[in-house]
Amino acid sequence: MPLAKQISDTKKKFITMPVGSGGKATKTFINTLLLPRFANARLNVLGDGALLDTSGDRLAFTTDSFVVSPLIFPGGSIGDLAVNGTLNDLAACGAKPLALSLSLILEEGLSLVVLEEVLDSIQAALNKAGVEIVTGDTKVVEKGKADGCYINTSGIGIVHQNSRNLGPKNISVGDDIIVTGPIGDHGTAIMLERGNLGIEADVKSDTVALAEPLGALMDQYGLSLHAMRDPTRGGLATVLNEMAESSNVGIEIDESQVPVRDEVRAVADLLGIDPLYIASEGRMVIFVNPEETENIVKILKSYPESENMAVIGKAVAEHPGFVLQNTSFGGQRIIDLLTGDPLPRIC
Amino acid sequence: MPLAKQISDTKKKFITMPVGSGGKATKTFINTLLLPRFANARLNVLGDGALLDTSGDRLAFTTDSFVVSPLIFPGGSIGDLAVNGTLNDLAACGAKPLALSLSLILEEGLSLVVLEEVLDSIQAALNKAGVEIVTGDTKVVEKGKADGCYINTSGIGIVHQNSRNLGPKNISVGDDIIVTGPIGDHGTAIMLERGNLGIEADVKSDTVALAEPLGALMDQYGLSLHAMRDPTRGGLATVLNEMAESSNVGIEIDESQVPVRDEVRAVADLLGIDPLYIASEGRMVIFVNPEETENIVKILKSYPESENMAVIGKAVAEHPGFVLQNTSFGGQRIIDLLTGDPLPRIC
Repeated sequence: MPLAKQISDTKKKFITMPVGSGGKATKTFINTLLLPRFANARLNVLGDGALLDTSGDRLAFTTDSFVVSPLIFPGGSIGDLAVNGTLNDLAACGAKPLALSLSLILEEGLSLVVLEEVLDSIQAALNKAGVEIVTGDTKVVEKGKADGCYINTSGIGIVHQNSRNLGPKNISVGDDIIVTGPIGDHGTAIMLERGNLGIEADVKSDTVALAEPLGALMDQYGLSLHAMRDPTRGGLATVLNEMAESSNVGIEIDESQVPVRDEVRAVADLLGIDPLYIASEGRMVIFVNPEETENIVKILKSYPESENMAVIGKAVAEHPGFVLQNTSFGGQRIIDLLTGDPLPRIC
Repeated sequence: MPLAKQISDTKKKFITMPVGSGGKATKTFINTLLLPRFANARLNVLGDGALLDTSGDRLAFTTDSFVVSPLIFPGGSIGDLAVNGTLNDLAACGAKPLALSLSLILEEGLSLVVLEEVLDSIQAALNKAGVEIVTGDTKVVEKGKADGCYINTSGIGIVHQNSRNLGPKNISVGDDIIVTGPIGDHGTAIMLERGNLGIEADVKSDTVALAEPLGALMDQYGLSLHAMRDPTRGGLATVLNEMAESSNVGIEIDESQVPVRDEVRAVADLLGIDPLYIASEGRMVIFVNPEETENIVKILKSYPESENMAVIGKAVAEHPGFVLQNTSFGGQRIIDLLTGDPLPRIC
């Protein structure tokens, strides 16, 4: 069925919202429209960024456009979301940020008060991370041709010398799987802020840069880190599926170990959505050598942005390419890629 | 008057189209909203890209979002426009491209036929330049929240060792000013393609990457190149004003030497627009040591993308910061920055 569905998606003659979801339609779009044209050794990895060798250092390069609606939400705005998202993509490449770019697409009539709030949040996120925007661009489109403001942030990082074991191909059977904090806060906060669900709950976006705890891990236990990716669009389920597929191991997670805030679970239950598919914007999924798990956990717990981390599962030899969840009732179920798009425009 | 106008612009509470024009309102926007927040040594240069030192090589980093309407036009599409524009920004930094990123913002309902044509033109431009996209991102926004497709391309380049005299600060009195081909083709082609002017003329966009001729210049006469910038939004007049201001020299150009195609001049005359303000997307303005002008001209004329180049003027000691044009009638007039936005959404 999934295959038939994918083929039917590719036959559609118009772009549909699920193409932007991070799930199956996105994968089909990349595989049928983008990779056949642009395939190359560095792009084909489809990581959070690309690794580039210059004569001396190894560089990481990443790009993301942000189209979240609303522009300002509990816990952040499209501005710090963009900066933190790009910083986290560099961190997922094992890189320390060198410089960021900022490209604004502004809609005619956008309120300067809103824009200044967005720019202030960019500035605060940059200051917190000690990173600079070194190049930029501003375009304005007519009223009705955007949704207030879209932002592209691209980033360059210097890859850590300890990162040589980092990459989905280095995931081994037995690896422990860590998530650095409760999942789904960001997607839930955005849904609630749109305000058309008839639900009220106190949930804030988790947007935050993870450069500090991940930098400390790289310094001290970098060779024990096997893969990192941030669970944004498509959530934890999507990242785990991508990892299982690229590494050809099986993945098992324990439902009871996956950290989800009560409020997020309550909203997800009301809406009939599995929190595993809800986006986070300040979390990282890390596959680690189990011999160092204890030390890695200690470091993560010592930073506020990752103190609520959890070890949620393992890479296993069985069912390579598939993700299984051990449920609280003692059963197992397959966690598949997302089909459709329950939460558009969350990043 | 210009100052009063700028101040009144900054007091407007909503983003207006001229903020995206490349002229005075853009400058005010950058100076009042962006630089006060993001100022740093590498950004403040406000070049086509930023220069970054790593331990070994010197890197150039640039970003541009493209929002041109229509997406496909005589001579190109938003796709090759984006690739060529970013390659030319790297060239303006004296850099050879290392890698590009591609970030798509697609509107729900965009025709796949149109998207594939755009992607094909990206692929063709990449192949021609021998450069790869190494990282990317795709977002989809609901119908009515974009205009088919917006594209961000960011780029990293390795700065040429001969580029140490390159930068507006190195412009000297006596420098010759070169433009690599006829100006205004791109902006004119876009205006005509929109089709609401009641004018028909055969004008194609000049979009092209200048990496080959400029790379050859760098190799052979790099130390004689003092500044380069591509005259996109705001046209040649805007670039010359930026150069005069950053270098604090005066600039004089000869109206009769500035290459403008007959068709472009005719359309501009009909619309009452000065071709000096119309965007090009495959041209470069170069300030060179006059001792090497003859050799530089020879090289440029040997490449098809710059064979119609011209020496259009000189940097002078008089009227520092101002651009004067010697007219065909023997007079002089000041060429000022653009006010307002005669041609929105041309790149």
